[in-house]
Amino acid sequence: MVTNNELKRFIIGLVKEAGKYVLNSFEGEFEVSFKDRKNNLVTEIDKKSQLIIEKIIISNFPEHKIIGEEDQKDKKIEGISEYVWVIDPIDGTTNFVNGIPNFSISVAILKNCEPIAGAIWIPWPNKKRYLIFSTAKGEGSWANNVRLNLSGSDPNSLDSGGISSYSSLSPIIGNQDRNIIPSKEILRGEKRVIGSVAYEMAMISKGAIKFALLGPAYIWDFGAGLLMIKEANGSVIALDSNYSSTGEFRSFLSGFELNKKTLSNMRNWEGQFLVGSPNIINLADSKKFV
Amino acid sequence: MVTNNELKRFIIGLVKEAGKYVLNSFEGEFEVSFKDRKNNLVTEIDKKSQLIIEKIIISNFPEHKIIGEEDQKDKKIEGISEYVWVIDPIDGTTNFVNGIPNFSISVAILKNCEPIAGAIWIPWPNKKRYLIFSTAKGEGSWANNVRLNLSGSDPNSLDSGGISSYSSLSPIIGNQDRNIIPSKEILRGEKRVIGSVAYEMAMISKGAIKFALLGPAYIWDFGAGLLMIKEANGSVIALDSNYSSTGEFRSFLSGFELNKKTLSNMRNWEGQFLVGSPNIINLADSKKFV
Repeated sequence: MVTNNELKRFIIGLVKEAGKYVLNSFEGEFEVSFKDRKNNLVTEIDKKSQLIIEKIIISNFPEHKIIGEEDQKDKKIEGISEYVWVIDPIDGTTNFVNGIPNFSISVAILKNCEPIAGAIWIPWPNKKRYLIFSTAKGEGSWANNVRLNLSGSDPNSLDSGGISSYSSLSPIIGNQDRNIIPSKEILRGEKRVIGSVAYEMAMISKGAIKFALLGPAYIWDFGAGLLMIKEANGSVIALDSNYSSTGEFRSFLSGFELNKKTLSNMRNWEGQFLVGSPNIINLADSKKFV
Repeated sequence: MVTNNELKRFIIGLVKEAGKYVLNSFEGEFEVSFKDRKNNLVTEIDKKSQLIIEKIIISNFPEHKIIGEEDQKDKKIEGISEYVWVIDPIDGTTNFVNGIPNFSISVAILKNCEPIAGAIWIPWPNKKRYLIFSTAKGEGSWANNVRLNLSGSDPNSLDSGGISSYSSLSPIIGNQDRNIIPSKEILRGEKRVIGSVAYEMAMISKGAIKFALLGPAYIWDFGAGLLMIKEANGSVIALDSNYSSTGEFRSFLSGFELNKKTLSNMRNWEGQFLVGSPNIINLADSKKFV
């Protein structure tokens, strides 16, 4: 029996391998000039990053299922497993292709639709040129070898230099056409729009971002990060499409049943979350947000 | 007589020196844990970064004047010079203190209130751990040793994966209390809020961001970046406080006169700009934005 911690260590190896390839593809170390990038070039890098990860998973866990952002739409689902891997080979592709270093690689394993281990790789200006955030259910969250803990965060930090972040699709950004009026509660903090959900969740896990309204985004975006925040003692509130709370996140689909329909539902799953330091999330009533 | 290019090379040395100190102070290479940072710690790092830069300027150009973000409010102005240095020792302090690597160091020299040379240092996930953007009037702009040129940018790129960026104070972000309704023109592109004006201007100069609404911000934020964008063949449109165009940027104060009042006006100067690739800025009529 493989433990959650062993799965975590395995996933760290996956994102490290894919990260090596992705980082070396990022602006070619400035040996190439800053041209307008071709979208097809990026698609190739996304796909190859996913292949690197899939290949290692398949050879170690041939009976598990895999859902990736770069799956072909008509990919055949054969058989079923309670273990499903969710892969975002480059989250923040638009940043990556334009040459902004806020992107990430996210890999998680779900058991009956609930994340049990995961990792997020991000580029970083240190000697290694990256950081790896990792987590396993019941075992905490880590940035490299530093354990993460959000429970002691100052609830007033949003009003004294704390950062909040939002999706570029979120209702607070240029909201005139969306018939959604954000409440004052959601406008606290110094606002950022970063453009990579998994990158933001890594930043939330280490307390760099205190509060975020994430999504709408997919299961491969959220797979590792939501567990990462929970295991760092943070709060993860699921929101419906009207941005009303449906309670603390636990699983992507409730009433999980082991059949082909479920895998297809996971592939098509979309959602949004309110996440952050618990002292800050507790201050806010998510029903008032919009 | 010192040429603009010689000034540029001198400024590259300044930001490299300050960058070494600032980057080594950023999260201490993760040897320290991710605690809530103390604001006074950052103020110390900001101040020391400015001192590193000022000391080298003073010993080389003792007759020049210096304006820095970290100046004490009651700093005495003695004498006057047509040459004034503007220093932002850490632009994006909130990102820096919270542990997000989107910050910058900006230094420029102005002659009669017009930038003639400057550089922006930013952290980067390469072997050196930073990039230096540099520019001199009439001599072009560079990222490390790559010459930057925005003139060929695709005018439609904002609708096909191009990035636009905004200040967290800009009227498009949570605009309900600002009585400003943004037009559709300003909502094009994938929106980002990065939190460091000088970092954004570096990204604009290399075409990573196609279009930005910058500010309100100060002379030390804009000193290097506006010249950088112009010398990369980009467009820089000055906006008044109602976000209406007042024409192409050339100088921070028109009708420059060499007296003490001018230096005080420069220190108190605030403004906002619409910048980007010329093909994209030309498509937009800035008077329609708000």
